[in-house]
Amino acid sequence: MSSFSLDNPVFRAYIVYSAILAVKVLAMTLLTAMTRVIRGTFANPEDTKMFKGAKVRYDDPAVERVRRAHLNDLENIPVFWVVAALYVSTNPVAAWATLLFRAFTLGRILHSIVYAVVPLPQPARAIAFGIPFLTTAYMGAQVILYYITAL
Amino acid sequence: MSSFSLDNPVFRAYIVYSAILAVKVLAMTLLTAMTRVIRGTFANPEDTKMFKGAKVRYDDPAVERVRRAHLNDLENIPVFWVVAALYVSTNPVAAWATLLFRAFTLGRILHSIVYAVVPLPQPARAIAFGIPFLTTAYMGAQVILYYITAL
Amino acid sequence: MSSFSLDNPVFRAYIVYSAILAVKVLAMTLLTAMTRVIRGTFANPEDTKMFKGAKVRYDDPAVERVRRAHLNDLENIPVFWVVAALYVSTNPVAAWATLLFRAFTLGRILHSIVYAVVPLPQPARAIAFGIPFLTTAYMGAQVILYYITAL
Repeated sequence: MSSFSLDNPVFRAYIVYSAILAVKVLAMTLLTAMTRVIRGTFANPEDTKMFKGAKVRYDDPAVERVRRAHLNDLENIPVFWVVAALYVSTNPVAAWATLLFRAFTLGRILHSIVYAVVPLPQPARAIAFGIPFLTTAYMGAQVILYYITAL
Repeated sequence: MSSFSLDNPVFRAYIVYSAILAVKVLAMTLLTAMTRVIRGTFANPEDTKMFKGAKVRYDDPAVERVRRAHLNDLENIPVFWVVAALYVSTNPVAAWATLLFRAFTLGRILHSIVYAVVPLPQPARAIAFGIPFLTTAYMGAQVILYYITAL
Repeated sequence: MSSFSLDNPVFRAYIVYSAILAVKVLAMTLLTAMTRVIRGTFANPEDTKMFKGAKVRYDDPAVERVRRAHLNDLENIPVFWVVAALYVSTNPVAAWATLLFRAFTLGRILHSIVYAVVPLPQPARAIAFGIPFLTTAYMGAQVILYYITAL
């Protein structure tokens, strides 16, 4: 049986957690848009014409905070999408692989919450960042070791 | 037949639209480079030595506009690459799936044009952004519902 | 035999180079964090409380340089992940495809080094950027030509 068969529970888990993460990334866009409207702060002159009293500013702390949380997603979530798919092909134990996918997904959702929704003191964000980071680093190392002969 | 077979017309459509989007993202880099050269505005001191009169600046409106359009691609197109691939595995009707891929691709190309090439008044960019956004959100939701038992 | 079979040496090469690139992207996060600690420069008020004398600043040249190198990865490496996978499906000659994957990976590693670790005069970074860029543009064009009938 191929690893990328829909009969493989690890592949099915990969698919559903990847889709949740995709929707989560899209949600950051809505959060940025909402924050911009509430703060009346936009990045383009043409955008300000849609909202009374809106201004072009690049240093609104609330908007920039959401944008940093979003950018942090872009630095980490596409890495998961690719590395977790490759990891599926190494035939990991299903329960362990699913645990890793869950830890990553939960960590990233918490990261966005403690960064951009209800900013908490450190090390809240460091932990919510670190667990997914270590998860992808571990899967990446496993994939490299498994396929090292293909170098 | 596997969903990820090259005999599946939906998978073939996914491949070609994904490749077009990849080339489109690369084109944004060329557009940024061209704009930097025309405006004589660079991000690094070593870059300014290649062009007479060039300066390090981070607030050139033309360069920053292209960079925002590029970043917006990075926020949206990798989400399509993963979520549309997962959506292929849910065996959607071919004509409908292909329509979604086309709408996303056309929307993103128009988005770059109205953002960075010929800036148009809103809601031009909001529409060009919204259609691809809703397309990926819809596909993500469909994938989650289809594989919900794998959570 | 399917292109995405683990018996296909091109697919195995794709997997290992993609995983190396994933770990490389993650390494940029560590480099940013290290540079922030050394320079005492952070993006959030809550981060500064962990390090004595640390400040919130958005214009530290060393930190911003690493961040630009990281962002450049995000602009180029996800494009490789998708376009190289699609290129595998076009059944390229194994030695040629593997050469392209190696050139991309080596180029991107050199790019980060000459950009953020030991800044070198141009055209060092332009070359380290250009080879991977042309590699992905070539693979993208090949994929589009191969699947053009699926438009």
